[in-house]
Amino acid sequence: MTMPYARISLLKGKPAPHIRAVADSLHRALVDAFGVPLKDRFQIIQSLAPEEFIFDRDYLFGPRSDDFVLVHITAGRPRDAATREAFYQRAVAYLGEAPGLRPEDVMIVISTTQTDEWSFGCGVAGVLGGRPAPAS
Amino acid sequence: MTMPYARISLLKGKPAPHIRAVADSLHRALVDAFGVPLKDRFQIIQSLAPEEFIFDRDYLFGPRSDDFVLVHITAGRPRDAATREAFYQRAVAYLGEAPGLRPEDVMIVISTTQTDEWSFGCGVAGVLGGRPAPAS
Amino acid sequence: MTMPYARISLLKGKPAPHIRAVADSLHRALVDAFGVPLKDRFQIIQSLAPEEFIFDRDYLFGPRSDDFVLVHITAGRPRDAATREAFYQRAVAYLGEAPGLRPEDVMIVISTTQTDEWSFGCGVAGVLGGRPAPAS
Repeated sequence: MTMPYARISLLKGKPAPHIRAVADSLHRALVDAFGVPLKDRFQIIQSLAPEEFIFDRDYLFGPRSDDFVLVHITAGRPRDAATREAFYQRAVAYLGEAPGLRPEDVMIVISTTQTDEWSFGCGVAGVLGGRPAPAS
Repeated sequence: MTMPYARISLLKGKPAPHIRAVADSLHRALVDAFGVPLKDRFQIIQSLAPEEFIFDRDYLFGPRSDDFVLVHITAGRPRDAATREAFYQRAVAYLGEAPGLRPEDVMIVISTTQTDEWSFGCGVAGVLGGRPAPAS
Repeated sequence: MTMPYARISLLKGKPAPHIRAVADSLHRALVDAFGVPLKDRFQIIQSLAPEEFIFDRDYLFGPRSDDFVLVHITAGRPRDAATREAFYQRAVAYLGEAPGLRPEDVMIVISTTQTDEWSFGCGVAGVLGGRPAPAS
């Protein structure tokens, strides 16, 4: 019950299997290290032209290549520092396996919201299940 | 004085009137149930190819169809739980009227900021009016 | 050590030098007034069709023109109100110089996260340097 959604930004022109592998590996890391259920998967991928995606190639932990991905996770509840760090490491490891990203090319930002700032559907706040959906 | 802005993500290929109805109904719900002035309307609509918009069809309150919309509201001040829930319900109801979305196809996430984390224009923080704009 | 990233939304069809000037001037304001290192530059520019970018032309500090930009800064640590306001003013001033935006056409929103909600690369949390990257 953790409801993150991920916004993944990368340079335009990557083949579809590359993009799919980025999305898959990122979600695998969320499941394995961030307490996210397997089916709790919501991802937006934004492919940007070079003039639309400006990133410093060297600032902190570079160098970054054209494979650079900026991942923004909007999370539904806070995680402690150890969990966050484990997630970062797992994400880098899995993305290194597929599609083969270099560790330097993975930047992650997490924004934290509260559980009842989410409605998954039917106008119901949070993850309260088993109640009739008010608006259906 | 509430300054939200909304980022609406949906699958590419919807007709313009469908998209407009989504935006209109969502804003109507913000006005009626979230304390947003009618003219305080700022919306970004992102139409995504299927491989750019990955969402689980069944996780919590599904099933979701190709009409699924993910709405991310960045709000300028906190609302209480009752207000948020009333807004979710109103949004689902209005989106059900036009363009006719199923309740299961409406996911909403709210991020909360502080009032003076906004500048509507002219370099002026928050909603302080009546002062000369410093940079004009 | 401040790690913001900026998401800049504007209407589609602007010439490349216009877009570049928006990005450059905004970053210059972050550096000069928001405590951001020159090389700490990460920007996403989203060019939107008119039906994808709905903004009220007059609400608070308008009127807004087709040059309107909505800038969303995701910051890595809180700033005090004076810093934020100085940044707003600086941004409007620099964007007025290049590409020549009117003050009314600059809207800024800041979301604040915590330092260790960021990983710049290599799976390392925050800005801790000098340690071996765990996943490399």
